Amino acid sequence: MAMIKILGIGGSLRKGSYSKAVLEAAMELLPKNVSMEMADISQIPIFNQDEEAESPPSVKRLKKQIRDADAILFCTPEYNFGIPGYLKNAIDWASRPYGDNSFDDKPAAVMSASDGMLGGIKAQLQLRQSFVFLNIHAVNDSVTVSQVTQKLGPEGKLADQRTRERIRELVEELVAWTIRIKE
Amino acid sequence: MAMIKILGIGGSLRKGSYSKAVLEAAMELLPKNVSMEMADISQIPIFNQDEEAESPPSVKRLKKQIRDADAILFCTPEYNFGIPGYLKNAIDWASRPYGDNSFDDKPAAVMSASDGMLGGIKAQLQLRQSFVFLNIHAVNDSVTVSQVTQKLGPEGKLADQRTRERIRELVEELVAWTIRIKE
Amino acid sequence: MAMIKILGIGGSLRKGSYSKAVLEAAMELLPKNVSMEMADISQIPIFNQDEEAESPPSVKRLKKQIRDADAILFCTPEYNFGIPGYLKNAIDWASRPYGDNSFDDKPAAVMSASDGMLGGIKAQLQLRQSFVFLNIHAVNDSVTVSQVTQKLGPEGKLADQRTRERIRELVEELVAWTIRIKE
Amino acid sequence: MAMIKILGIGGSLRKGSYSKAVLEAAMELLPKNVSMEMADISQIPIFNQDEEAESPPSVKRLKKQIRDADAILFCTPEYNFGIPGYLKNAIDWASRPYGDNSFDDKPAAVMSASDGMLGGIKAQLQLRQSFVFLNIHAVNDSVTVSQVTQKLGPEGKLADQRTRERIRELVEELVAWTIRIKE
Repeated sequence: MAMIKILGIGGSLRKGSYSKAVLEAAMELLPKNVSMEMADISQIPIFNQDEEAESPPSVKRLKKQIRDADAILFCTPEYNFGIPGYLKNAIDWASRPYGDNSFDDKPAAVMSASDGMLGGIKAQLQLRQSFVFLNIHAVNDSVTVSQVTQKLGPEGKLADQRTRERIRELVEELVAWTIRIKE
Repeated sequence: MAMIKILGIGGSLRKGSYSKAVLEAAMELLPKNVSMEMADISQIPIFNQDEEAESPPSVKRLKKQIRDADAILFCTPEYNFGIPGYLKNAIDWASRPYGDNSFDDKPAAVMSASDGMLGGIKAQLQLRQSFVFLNIHAVNDSVTVSQVTQKLGPEGKLADQRTRERIRELVEELVAWTIRIKE
Repeated sequence: MAMIKILGIGGSLRKGSYSKAVLEAAMELLPKNVSMEMADISQIPIFNQDEEAESPPSVKRLKKQIRDADAILFCTPEYNFGIPGYLKNAIDWASRPYGDNSFDDKPAAVMSASDGMLGGIKAQLQLRQSFVFLNIHAVNDSVTVSQVTQKLGPEGKLADQRTRERIRELVEELVAWTIRIKE
Repeated sequence: MAMIKILGIGGSLRKGSYSKAVLEAAMELLPKNVSMEMADISQIPIFNQDEEAESPPSVKRLKKQIRDADAILFCTPEYNFGIPGYLKNAIDWASRPYGDNSFDDKPAAVMSASDGMLGGIKAQLQLRQSFVFLNIHAVNDSVTVSQVTQKLGPEGKLADQRTRERIRELVEELVAWTIRIKE
């Protein structure tokens, strides 16, 4: 059986990003025959359509990572009731220019993390709305980590056992879905 | 009667941005006693929460412009069924740090422009969702410019008379709403 | 100073509806010079546009209550990540026929209640999206009651003090907003 | 090769429903080895959770039709920027009681029809949001029929050839997707 390669996308530029901690937990909880790497979106500039034909190296790298992946695992915080601009900006680059959308036909799953009570569900739903245009096929289940600071352990690692169990389940669902829809 | 000052926010970094053309049309259609200036969001970097306490000059300038304005007029394109990352990124900066949201209690109106048939309505609705958190009070009417390239004249100016009339009406509604909710 | 009349809309047909309990708590927490009554949407049939010109008595009554009110206070559960059909159905009737939208220009506030962790925020946001078309002006603050069964006291009344305090605040904001936007 | 059975859901109670016309066009454009029948949601009462354990015959019939179908094809109008109450109400019934969601794991596709310029895209997106909870796997493509009255022929049939071609394509995509995700 071939390896399934997951690409993790998310995590703010902030040191100690909660979304990064959640994605790193996923990397520790992979099933057999699954590998995962993280995209680095911190160097991606503000999108400028005049430059999309010759995109910056950070964008080229991201698009190559997406194409090489069998599945995408997103984790997003929530800013102002929606997707953070920096994450949407990376997605916008990776979908352009027209006809060269690197996300096309990829399976995906969605997680979010916030320090509030609602855990970022509104950002998740905006992400899913973009998937309709991007032609991403997402697992309907998701992981929503509320009050995330209470769930971190030493060195900012995600320590809460119940949340880790939910992440493990979601990764397993993503792998099963990836195999199911493979043509 | 005091002047009403409107701040226009929107317009992609691309030369010949359609959203910028729509905002510039609004500047030509102002009622008496109303002035309007444009925010420049092209220099705003990717948001980094670690830097929000000492934000870059482009962000400081944007926040001052928002505070000094009596009302905000947004115009947005639509990327991947939602708000473009670059616009959301500027909004995210202007709402931070916590307790220093420059949009708080401002009246606003929303326009969008796209070359498709649906004119950016999905981006508008995501903008409105952010307003709930930002505590912006938006006029319910809006202007949705579909097939915008067919409505441009020489030098990329918005030439379509019916669209210009709708923009004029919306600006008038925004001014009336601004006066109505002034405390 | 004239009385402010609030109309409460929401509450499922189920006996012991949580949304009804939340609205009834609001009725007990009114400021001076404010009265509140509840709409009864349990008798409203499924919308049929062929019958909208001569609407059923339950719809006529609802539309009259809406028109007579100075402000609307909604409370909604969440079904399948959105507004319950029965509530949207009542709203659809009250907005029709074309040109006879009883909600036009009304101030409003939104609450939700659910037994899950997220408290119905997704239903709230769909309600707010309908407000854009209905021309309802909603307070941006809201009350989101999660895990509502743990917050009920004897006889199904909303007993949780912190939640009751939040409801009191929201009603006060709605009243202040109603006065502010009165022309 | 086994027959693929599609169930069409949508169509208002109004005689001459546009959504029904769009679904009926789909029935005339089926590929080989595909059959399609229409759900009748006109008799479904307002949802009442107290009655969900012993649901009315119209609901039992709908749930059986959904279970027997290999795929669902929705068509929705748009009321007040969202899903019509009557359609959401039918979906709410079909998803209940807890643990007996008849939509679970079904493939689907979405169409909409309206007489406005935007063709019901906002209703489509609310439908898709419910799919996340219902665990429906929808094709990302969709058909959006704007200005539908101009596209009808004699006897209210959908006559516009370009729209009919788009419907044919969408049905083919739904069938391919249904086969692809079949386990």
